[in-house]
Amino acid sequence: MGGEGNTRYGREKFERSRSHFADRITADGRDGWPVEPGRYRLVVSRACPWASRAVISRRLLGLEDAISMAVTDPIQDDRSWRFTLDPGDRDPVLGIGFLHEAYDKREKDYPGGVSVPAIVDVPSGALVTNDFQRITLDFATEWTGRHREGAPDLYPEALRAEIDEVMEDVYRDVNNGVYRAGFATSQADYEEACDAVFARLERLAGRLERRRYLVGDTITEADIRLFTTLVRFDPVYHGHFKCNRWKLTENPVLWAYARDLFQTPGFGDTVDFDHIKRHYYMVHTGINPTRVVPVGPDLSAWLTPHHREQLGGRPFGDGTPPGPVPPDEEVPAAGRPRPS
Amino acid sequence: MGGEGNTRYGREKFERSRSHFADRITADGRDGWPVEPGRYRLVVSRACPWASRAVISRRLLGLEDAISMAVTDPIQDDRSWRFTLDPGDRDPVLGIGFLHEAYDKREKDYPGGVSVPAIVDVPSGALVTNDFQRITLDFATEWTGRHREGAPDLYPEALRAEIDEVMEDVYRDVNNGVYRAGFATSQADYEEACDAVFARLERLAGRLERRRYLVGDTITEADIRLFTTLVRFDPVYHGHFKCNRWKLTENPVLWAYARDLFQTPGFGDTVDFDHIKRHYYMVHTGINPTRVVPVGPDLSAWLTPHHREQLGGRPFGDGTPPGPVPPDEEVPAAGRPRPS
Repeated sequence: MGGEGNTRYGREKFERSRSHFADRITADGRDGWPVEPGRYRLVVSRACPWASRAVISRRLLGLEDAISMAVTDPIQDDRSWRFTLDPGDRDPVLGIGFLHEAYDKREKDYPGGVSVPAIVDVPSGALVTNDFQRITLDFATEWTGRHREGAPDLYPEALRAEIDEVMEDVYRDVNNGVYRAGFATSQADYEEACDAVFARLERLAGRLERRRYLVGDTITEADIRLFTTLVRFDPVYHGHFKCNRWKLTENPVLWAYARDLFQTPGFGDTVDFDHIKRHYYMVHTGINPTRVVPVGPDLSAWLTPHHREQLGGRPFGDGTPPGPVPPDEEVPAAGRPRPS
Repeated sequence: MGGEGNTRYGREKFERSRSHFADRITADGRDGWPVEPGRYRLVVSRACPWASRAVISRRLLGLEDAISMAVTDPIQDDRSWRFTLDPGDRDPVLGIGFLHEAYDKREKDYPGGVSVPAIVDVPSGALVTNDFQRITLDFATEWTGRHREGAPDLYPEALRAEIDEVMEDVYRDVNNGVYRAGFATSQADYEEACDAVFARLERLAGRLERRRYLVGDTITEADIRLFTTLVRFDPVYHGHFKCNRWKLTENPVLWAYARDLFQTPGFGDTVDFDHIKRHYYMVHTGINPTRVVPVGPDLSAWLTPHHREQLGGRPFGDGTPPGPVPPDEEVPAAGRPRPS
């Protein structure tokens, strides 16, 4: 499956294409890519929910020093993701202007889509993987030797079966479901997808009513994956993708759950609402031809009390929250909610 | 100014075109069109806020027997408003398939837009007026001899200056403001319009916090005109026109005010949410190319208690509410909110 950028829509049903490059970076280096601090660069868009998983994992696990990060412009052009936020419009580490150059270095004239998240081998400048479903699991399980002190276990072995099951439902109906709704070109396809989004969200709200996190009593990969869709729900999926049965703010359980995570170090401090809104509304001209970006919704409520501590739970298990965001990775003020 | 149908949008700022036919039907018949029961037919779309004013006025004043009503299909084709909801796709009284035929009878090869509300002279089949700003005021003041017993005074002489002032602000910033936002093709034009919409709504909410109606202590034309925009706000203007700073349901004062009117005989019983949603989302392909109609929002809350009676006010002044809707004018179940 492909991350953001790898989406096809037209007359047919929306389908997310498969990741073409699925090599894994592992502790034992069996795919030829051993864990090695400083060797790899994570390329993301802060607009993209699939890439944002990796941004959050990297923060929670304290991998900032081990794996550097490049943030693309939220607006792709016809050559896809580009480094136009950087001086000289080039990524300062990879020295390239477009992510596709790293794809080209890996496979000459690769005909598929260019997607984020992507991990690039810095010495060769070649793409290692764009397997967005795998990247974060490997951060959690293969990079353990480089995790910060107090890093949480985001994919605990004893709970993997349950985590996998929850994530599969969330992926199908929610993470990818909102895209199926938004890119539907027939009323029937749209309604089927939209109904599945809300049916699943309502089941998840039931699950989260009396427990603080989706699986176990600590934050896991499952929470990260649900969060990245919830945080985009009212700003883009509600209007742009027509998932408008209700706003997230109208569902008391999910809204409190999402705010709880947002206010947890490593989640909200990675979110750039400006990148999120501009990406969706300006790139998908097939559903927003004017490219006008809405002024709403009011985001200040993301900072209001959620009271989820009352449910107990230990956010980081036996560990601790991550420290502050490195200064050069701070989200600009334009992308952050302002207290009202 | 023109009602629905008479909208132009393109590279320039959105501008509502002027009504071309502004003859008045008066008690003294000075324009050649005297008040005469059974002579005129009001042509509306239940989707259209401008036409819906006339539908509500006619109900509140009890003019159903004096002025018959034709309801067009909410979806125009390239010949504009059509009578495809009627047997044989023709209006049974006028015997025409398209409203433009009445325009043509009035002025051969009229080059302007065809808009609703329109009043047609039944004997000649010719359009009398499409002056949406005037039609309801004349219902209130020129047709008094044909009003039902207990009809309210919707445009009381002593309050006209205040009513006109409120309506002017509401027209510019709200009724037409949502169209300026929705049809804007530049970010700056959109933001200016959207800011004006919400600034005005917030001022109106302040005005309505301690008084039940906009002017005086009874329902007037000013309330009708604000209502027709508010009832469309969450179903279409919020998403389709990007007026998404907040939903109507998130503004306690305006939401209670809108529900109070909705639940007043003559208001909610004229509203067809199915026509409203299908019209906007399927006709404006410039802003919704897929023509997919959203499933949301949940409309059942329109029927919930509003508690505005506590503010006092006399909805119909010394008069009474209108009786039930004539059976052949009832809104189909598909267009009505269902209790949850």
